[in-house]
Amino acid sequence: MPGQRSRTGVWLVGARGSVATTVVAGTAALRAGLAGTAGCVTEQPGFPDAGLPALSDLVFGGHDVACTPLPKRAEQLVEAGVLPHGLPAGIQDDLAAADAEIRQAPLPDGTTSQGDAVAAIRDDIVAFRERHGLARVVVVNVSSTEPVLAPHPAHDSAGALRAALAAGEDVLPPSSLYALAAITAGCAHVDFTPSAGMRIPALHKLAEEAGVPYAGNDGKTGETLLKATLGPMFAARGLRVRAWSGTNLLGGGDGETLADPAASASKEVSKQHVLGRTLGHPVEGEVHIDYVPSLGDWKTAWDHVAFDGFLGVRMNLQFTWVGCDSALAAPLVMDLARLTARAHERGVSGPLGELGFFFKDPVGTDEHAVMAQYETLRAFAAGLGGGR
Amino acid sequence: MPGQRSRTGVWLVGARGSVATTVVAGTAALRAGLAGTAGCVTEQPGFPDAGLPALSDLVFGGHDVACTPLPKRAEQLVEAGVLPHGLPAGIQDDLAAADAEIRQAPLPDGTTSQGDAVAAIRDDIVAFRERHGLARVVVVNVSSTEPVLAPHPAHDSAGALRAALAAGEDVLPPSSLYALAAITAGCAHVDFTPSAGMRIPALHKLAEEAGVPYAGNDGKTGETLLKATLGPMFAARGLRVRAWSGTNLLGGGDGETLADPAASASKEVSKQHVLGRTLGHPVEGEVHIDYVPSLGDWKTAWDHVAFDGFLGVRMNLQFTWVGCDSALAAPLVMDLARLTARAHERGVSGPLGELGFFFKDPVGTDEHAVMAQYETLRAFAAGLGGGR
Amino acid sequence: MPGQRSRTGVWLVGARGSVATTVVAGTAALRAGLAGTAGCVTEQPGFPDAGLPALSDLVFGGHDVACTPLPKRAEQLVEAGVLPHGLPAGIQDDLAAADAEIRQAPLPDGTTSQGDAVAAIRDDIVAFRERHGLARVVVVNVSSTEPVLAPHPAHDSAGALRAALAAGEDVLPPSSLYALAAITAGCAHVDFTPSAGMRIPALHKLAEEAGVPYAGNDGKTGETLLKATLGPMFAARGLRVRAWSGTNLLGGGDGETLADPAASASKEVSKQHVLGRTLGHPVEGEVHIDYVPSLGDWKTAWDHVAFDGFLGVRMNLQFTWVGCDSALAAPLVMDLARLTARAHERGVSGPLGELGFFFKDPVGTDEHAVMAQYETLRAFAAGLGGGR
Amino acid sequence: MPGQRSRTGVWLVGARGSVATTVVAGTAALRAGLAGTAGCVTEQPGFPDAGLPALSDLVFGGHDVACTPLPKRAEQLVEAGVLPHGLPAGIQDDLAAADAEIRQAPLPDGTTSQGDAVAAIRDDIVAFRERHGLARVVVVNVSSTEPVLAPHPAHDSAGALRAALAAGEDVLPPSSLYALAAITAGCAHVDFTPSAGMRIPALHKLAEEAGVPYAGNDGKTGETLLKATLGPMFAARGLRVRAWSGTNLLGGGDGETLADPAASASKEVSKQHVLGRTLGHPVEGEVHIDYVPSLGDWKTAWDHVAFDGFLGVRMNLQFTWVGCDSALAAPLVMDLARLTARAHERGVSGPLGELGFFFKDPVGTDEHAVMAQYETLRAFAAGLGGGR
Repeated sequence: MPGQRSRTGVWLVGARGSVATTVVAGTAALRAGLAGTAGCVTEQPGFPDAGLPALSDLVFGGHDVACTPLPKRAEQLVEAGVLPHGLPAGIQDDLAAADAEIRQAPLPDGTTSQGDAVAAIRDDIVAFRERHGLARVVVVNVSSTEPVLAPHPAHDSAGALRAALAAGEDVLPPSSLYALAAITAGCAHVDFTPSAGMRIPALHKLAEEAGVPYAGNDGKTGETLLKATLGPMFAARGLRVRAWSGTNLLGGGDGETLADPAASASKEVSKQHVLGRTLGHPVEGEVHIDYVPSLGDWKTAWDHVAFDGFLGVRMNLQFTWVGCDSALAAPLVMDLARLTARAHERGVSGPLGELGFFFKDPVGTDEHAVMAQYETLRAFAAGLGGGR
Repeated sequence: MPGQRSRTGVWLVGARGSVATTVVAGTAALRAGLAGTAGCVTEQPGFPDAGLPALSDLVFGGHDVACTPLPKRAEQLVEAGVLPHGLPAGIQDDLAAADAEIRQAPLPDGTTSQGDAVAAIRDDIVAFRERHGLARVVVVNVSSTEPVLAPHPAHDSAGALRAALAAGEDVLPPSSLYALAAITAGCAHVDFTPSAGMRIPALHKLAEEAGVPYAGNDGKTGETLLKATLGPMFAARGLRVRAWSGTNLLGGGDGETLADPAASASKEVSKQHVLGRTLGHPVEGEVHIDYVPSLGDWKTAWDHVAFDGFLGVRMNLQFTWVGCDSALAAPLVMDLARLTARAHERGVSGPLGELGFFFKDPVGTDEHAVMAQYETLRAFAAGLGGGR
Repeated sequence: MPGQRSRTGVWLVGARGSVATTVVAGTAALRAGLAGTAGCVTEQPGFPDAGLPALSDLVFGGHDVACTPLPKRAEQLVEAGVLPHGLPAGIQDDLAAADAEIRQAPLPDGTTSQGDAVAAIRDDIVAFRERHGLARVVVVNVSSTEPVLAPHPAHDSAGALRAALAAGEDVLPPSSLYALAAITAGCAHVDFTPSAGMRIPALHKLAEEAGVPYAGNDGKTGETLLKATLGPMFAARGLRVRAWSGTNLLGGGDGETLADPAASASKEVSKQHVLGRTLGHPVEGEVHIDYVPSLGDWKTAWDHVAFDGFLGVRMNLQFTWVGCDSALAAPLVMDLARLTARAHERGVSGPLGELGFFFKDPVGTDEHAVMAQYETLRAFAAGLGGGR
Repeated sequence: MPGQRSRTGVWLVGARGSVATTVVAGTAALRAGLAGTAGCVTEQPGFPDAGLPALSDLVFGGHDVACTPLPKRAEQLVEAGVLPHGLPAGIQDDLAAADAEIRQAPLPDGTTSQGDAVAAIRDDIVAFRERHGLARVVVVNVSSTEPVLAPHPAHDSAGALRAALAAGEDVLPPSSLYALAAITAGCAHVDFTPSAGMRIPALHKLAEEAGVPYAGNDGKTGETLLKATLGPMFAARGLRVRAWSGTNLLGGGDGETLADPAASASKEVSKQHVLGRTLGHPVEGEVHIDYVPSLGDWKTAWDHVAFDGFLGVRMNLQFTWVGCDSALAAPLVMDLARLTARAHERGVSGPLGELGFFFKDPVGTDEHAVMAQYETLRAFAAGLGGGR
């Protein structure tokens, strides 16, 4: 009887976007036996004893400003080559059920204060949890990238933030309103984007007080995944990287957002963190993010790495990664929701550095080497086991 | 006074080849402060306490069938862009000293038995050790790739091998004559090529009896290094590799050898081991090795990886690695000589699986993931420390 | 009234293959206004006055050994991403009409002589022409690549060939049986594959006697198209190409055929013709064709070009071409059918060197530079104009 | 006796730069038989009857703000791999002779008016011509790229320009001062950079009045050469290019200049001209120019072309061009000097559109397709023949 099992909610901020739609459709496809587990980390060997919520026990809802229903969005993703032909027909009920749980995102309209917006978001999440009798809910940000956050004194302490919101000031970016709402609703939070989200000292403090775990930022699905894989090899071999240059061609919605230099700056900063920390010294080279609408939901990343070998001989490596952004991101969102929910269940709170494997710019850790992150993840998962 | 320090010999089979010349010249350059340590694994952080012989305590000698003196070979490598301009002038003494220790390799001439050839090789090595008062000698095979070994009953046991050699039979490939000579001289052995070398059961047994350590096979300097780096990432992410295809363009001497399909087969087998073991399932795709004389000492490898992401979406990665073969190989040979000598000094014998980090087809281990091999190597090096 | 217009037949050898199915479906899509003219050379500016048969006046038929109906094949190509979703539904009538005109290809069964097979093929073609009241028919070979042709004395003269066939000898490869049948039916012939087809002196003579034009061989749709485009640039700039190496990964049916080294040899020879003739000197480098089933109907070609610049400085170019084979080939087949039919109508006979733009190994010309071939093609098309 | 032969001067603006040094050294190397003609267009078949000045009849001089002597610069280029080892020793006399003809470039110092600067430049050129009894001099701009020119009313007519200069106004960029000096000295002019140079209406008029020919702008040596080669192929095949994206990594001096966004803008505009004009419709995609000092005198360009094939199937091409900038540019500068001098000799004046083969953004023509430009060039050269 479902009521007796412990079901877990996944509240998607940006619930009608390509990633969110792929998450809902993909989870339904796996439940229905219509797809394999490729790309799902927690479905690979090494995770079965972690006590993670089953895919069949996930319940989806979320906020969005867009109105296109999920079944229609799923059809669009079929056209785009992201979802297999014929899939939407086999999962209509799941798409409709998730669609029914999507609420209109509160928009800044000059009449609602940020404090009121946070309360409205929280109320939607709490109502979702109660309506379905969920053990807990993980709030996951999969919405568009925001511009780089400008500093503000209200970010520095919980008190200053509370005071500013009480005074009706606009001091938080949208992603952080959702993070704050998650905290006040007692929910775990995952930021899959480079936006500020929980990355404000005042929110760290509030999350700690509330005892909720959080993970982020910015899912590692392409160029940065390769940087974090190849960088440690260069370091281990003593090959000195002189320059690492990269160009990312993005066609999808995020490409359009990132065509705005302000948003792109967030992403580029995020992408460069990995190299300096992995190689231990600065390297030359720039990262470009270009919006190329013709590419649709696909992205192509080209990187060129100039390095010195023995006796200063100059050599190079270049790679081209061609991937479907939503198909790369969605299974990681599912992994993160399950892992974070389980951590919450086990009483873990604060930044989940052990989930750095999934992120370009991980909170709670300085480790950027992919395989080291993977070992940490497996150990963390093993530790989550038992007691369920 | 040098006589009081413990000096270590490095006996290079193929001592006038590009790799050997770069080893001798590079070691001299480092001693003289004329070059940095790029590409030298054991000169990076993490190895200083392993008690490895200092670069300044290495003494070089070896066998070759070629006659061009090392100073001349070094000039040729300057022309080829492998060694820096002006270097040979600064290290003339070291080049001349090593050249004086190179002996003519015994050639099969129909009059000398294999047993006699092994004895002659052993005598050259022992005389080298005594002449310089060396604590020990590591024999390193850096000669051209041999054809794939045909099985022979004399390979199966030490007794059968001894009997066959005593009877004057030709049962071993050249690389194994040197391996056997190393054993009988009480020397550690490293096979940096894909040739048979020590990989014959009878030799395993003899090495064990003699208490000597050995490492191999086939240095991992390009395409396979990347396979072993990227493969584990695909596995950790659950991305299913469908096909991995590769083309290697080689200009140098080994390219010419490998243009012979028989030798190339050795190399291609060696290159494919990594993938199957790392990914845990067979993948489509071929590996080509083309001889392209115009490339000189450089090699270019192009690999194309077709993989399935979530819901079966097809994606791909391609990379191009452009490297100077001798400059990639030489510092690893230096690393291996030092590590193997130290292991010998500490009483370690048999196959050194812990050195799998350096090899395409490592003996003594089933681990093929580069970063896991690196962790093993560091732990091994730490264990070698002390007691010196 | 269609009967009054001059309609043209296109008889496809390999009529149920991917290329043929795409030809039939694509022509129907263009007729129905369901697709644009991308990839169709003769639909671009410069050809409207050539008097070519209209796409709506083409009637399709052909031979195949396979039995899968065209509507089913079209659905398979939708799944493979070659045809747009929903297309087959809009062109059912055209697919069914073409399917009804496909005849079982005569198979060598030990009981039928080659002379009888040629007669049977000819009868099918003639019946097709009469059944539809066609002004003329062009026979186009789009079947799988055959092994390289072994020489035979019967190939050398029309008399020797006639005598051998009359004696019941098997002296021709299958592709040449169709070429001979086309000649005896008074039809123009196009060989889009590297198979022998018309490339036998005895057939040249017979085609000349019959006054039929023919074109071939081997459609230029990827790597070779780029060789023929880039090679002339290197020559014009005086940049000396030292080595041109290529690897072709093919997933489709032709990839499987070409996994047979005998067939692959045909193709590789064909691909190498272009370079030597364009650059005027031999170049190093090999061409590989690998069968990679995971790639489906797609192909990926990687080429590496090493060249010398001023004062001998070594430079290089590499490219990767990712294309859908059937989508690249089909519009060219349509172009060739129209151009060859029009040439036949205008009384042109013998080898159509002016169509070299379309072929890797063109008959009737030594020009291999793409843009020079294009100028020749446009002049030829202009000359075909008028009189219709 | 040299005095009886007609010798030609080449006045290099930026005479101590890498391109100029390679021009002087390369010409000397060819004269001395120390190098082949790779990369020299006018030394390939098709140009011997054009009556071009012989390489041995070229005399070099020029302006620069830098002071490093040419023999020293040549040694630096040997270190950088641009010039062959040992070359400078064989051509010391030629390097010294050219160095003796380099004059300090007039710098804007607040005390000299632009009119005076033009007069000073002109005097240096005229003195050079007279000192060597040269038949004529070609002024070639190979200096660093300037920022995009801001419009000014004085640019619009010869009268307005004369008046502004007479009034002591600063209205011209440096490159145009040299162009004006060339005109007033009665010399032909070539602009090998994207700078304004002669591209000001007032200068067109003055050049016409003076009867001098001029050519430009911006030598086509890498990415744009390939765009102009591949673009026409896509057009001829009817393949619809949707997006063409490019990243250029430059290490040399021009890379540093172009790291300044203002200068880079000149170059990027120049690079984009080709595509729109060749394809006949706008395409998506950006061009990046990154300064990567580690690359030294080398550049790497990566381009990604997304195109639609038949029935809208999406395909792509990517290429990577790795070249040595100075070695690509220098022989073209030699070609241009010879062709422009000969045109001047034959009485041709005004913009030399027939030399568009050499330029990214050619003056005097709208043709951007490389092979069409090449045919035009050959016809032009043939027309220059005779009468010498």
